[in-house]
Amino acid sequence: MSRFFSYKYKDLVPYTPGEQPKVLNVTKLNTNECPFPPSEKAMTFAREHLRPLNLYPEIQCIDVRSRLAELHGIDVDSIILGNGSDELLNFSFMAFCDDRKQAAFPSISYGFYPVYADLNHVPYTTIPLRADFTIAPEDYFDLHRTIFIANPNAPTGLALTRSQVEEIVKHNPDSVVVIDEAYVDFGGETCIPLIKDYDNLLVVQTFSKSRSMAGARLGFAAGSKALIADLNAIKYSINPYNVNSMTLAVGLGVLLDEETTKANCRTIMDNRAYTTAALEKLGFEVLPSSSNFIFARTDKIGGGNLYLQLKERGVLIRHFAQPGIEEWSRITIGTKEQMDIFLKNVREILEERK
Amino acid sequence: MSRFFSYKYKDLVPYTPGEQPKVLNVTKLNTNECPFPPSEKAMTFAREHLRPLNLYPEIQCIDVRSRLAELHGIDVDSIILGNGSDELLNFSFMAFCDDRKQAAFPSISYGFYPVYADLNHVPYTTIPLRADFTIAPEDYFDLHRTIFIANPNAPTGLALTRSQVEEIVKHNPDSVVVIDEAYVDFGGETCIPLIKDYDNLLVVQTFSKSRSMAGARLGFAAGSKALIADLNAIKYSINPYNVNSMTLAVGLGVLLDEETTKANCRTIMDNRAYTTAALEKLGFEVLPSSSNFIFARTDKIGGGNLYLQLKERGVLIRHFAQPGIEEWSRITIGTKEQMDIFLKNVREILEERK
Repeated sequence: MSRFFSYKYKDLVPYTPGEQPKVLNVTKLNTNECPFPPSEKAMTFAREHLRPLNLYPEIQCIDVRSRLAELHGIDVDSIILGNGSDELLNFSFMAFCDDRKQAAFPSISYGFYPVYADLNHVPYTTIPLRADFTIAPEDYFDLHRTIFIANPNAPTGLALTRSQVEEIVKHNPDSVVVIDEAYVDFGGETCIPLIKDYDNLLVVQTFSKSRSMAGARLGFAAGSKALIADLNAIKYSINPYNVNSMTLAVGLGVLLDEETTKANCRTIMDNRAYTTAALEKLGFEVLPSSSNFIFARTDKIGGGNLYLQLKERGVLIRHFAQPGIEEWSRITIGTKEQMDIFLKNVREILEERK
Repeated sequence: MSRFFSYKYKDLVPYTPGEQPKVLNVTKLNTNECPFPPSEKAMTFAREHLRPLNLYPEIQCIDVRSRLAELHGIDVDSIILGNGSDELLNFSFMAFCDDRKQAAFPSISYGFYPVYADLNHVPYTTIPLRADFTIAPEDYFDLHRTIFIANPNAPTGLALTRSQVEEIVKHNPDSVVVIDEAYVDFGGETCIPLIKDYDNLLVVQTFSKSRSMAGARLGFAAGSKALIADLNAIKYSINPYNVNSMTLAVGLGVLLDEETTKANCRTIMDNRAYTTAALEKLGFEVLPSSSNFIFARTDKIGGGNLYLQLKERGVLIRHFAQPGIEEWSRITIGTKEQMDIFLKNVREILEERK
């Protein structure tokens, strides 16, 4: 830290992302990426429709927003794009939270929520998960706080139904409820249709998981036109060209090839069922996941230990040294081949401990 | 604005970027883009070295940072990349300014500085330009404020020498001095070599102008390792993957083809001299520009009027309705063909007024 760093941020504890090895000779099941790249159809479209790079991007991002509006049956002015959904989550903490309107989110959820709260000097409350790791909707009723819920939740993979979310939104008419649907395409139910009925609901999605674009950084938020106008006021005061032309081109290409996205999601859900069954056979407890990862534990080996031993063997999974989930492992669902490598190594590690 | 928008941002007046027409059938001389796309050599490199898009970007951006470090003869840890230089300017307002350490910048300069100050609730002072539009270094001595100077300045195009900047840095040992070198490659003198001697100097550059990458969004800041660590603390608390894999690949490709960048800059400087001479012949006053735009006025037609008449004819330039420069026009230097179209239309507009 320099002697010039503002007192406002001196105590900031930045988010710790999962490891991103520069060299790709590992089985990477630690940051919930899609194992499949964007389709050739999507990339060809992107190459053919790329705006000249020497010009600034089309600032309204109208093509991608129009396509999303069409897919979800909502108005184009109900959508804003971000440089990944992280940017939009931060915009939401900026726009809808302050010392008067504090924040609330589950005690175990996406690790960036408390970072965004601290960054923006927003006091926050965490709501404990139930003993079975589920989110109980009634715990979120009448909070008078801006609520952030990842649905499906991370790292548990457990999902609320749309009607459960609707209950939360209904019971907080004076607060914005932000539903972070990063993982919704793997078995969850999107709440985007509800934005027409509730002016206090904001739904955030990412192209990093089901749409194979983690490396391209694209996210979007859907909500009432007024909520989106607020987020646009923030965007135009920070970085009007927040999404670049290449990302817009690939994003549109991917949205024009929904068949591939859907097929990839089906494959990942199949591989999830396969991996879950295999782990259960090895004595693991596995939470019922609606996402592209599973959350698992066993009495046979601790979560931190399993993480380290797999890492030594070239398999990266994610471990969180957080009270309540220290014994658990979060494993991204990749290709069948990747899951077989993972399972083979888990079997060997357990075998060695006998 | 929604009923949920935080009181903290209710009065925010977002930045107004120059128009970005979706359709490209205009002569676009309004946002200081490079008229030439990245070279085929750069793009081929980028395509061949693109990290798979389904994986998150290499978070340290080590290849681009290393190449920049090599080009400038500085340490790789003295460099941070941003999603355009705008992001890094905002990070600097966050990290180095607050209610105790206020900001100062020229009264006529990049229009985003007051927006960033307001966004971050940083009180600021503007220092008037001298009557000839120059920045007088001594006006910035001992300010006890974080100083932001665009050098060359925008929209004037006038530059301070490196030793003039050094005087400002020397006379503000207790404050960070941020030098925004967006336009430095068109005749300015970079201050990056000074970062080794002064721990209070931060230099910000962009790939949007001389490096043809406005549509790809890439900027960087160079400073002491401690200053860069501060900016990294902000980056990792907002959006750790702020620069995407495609931008990193194109950025590296462009940096490996310095010959093209230098040739493009020479062409633009030639076209600048050509346009300046032609405008002077038409009775314009043109400030001596060290950037890829010129700032000009004439008694024959007002700045707002010239802007509108050119727009009607399909030529976009930039006009600022700001006291002191209302009669001036900022004209981006494009290709010789673009400048001829611009000059032809200016001649016709002046002719019609006779």
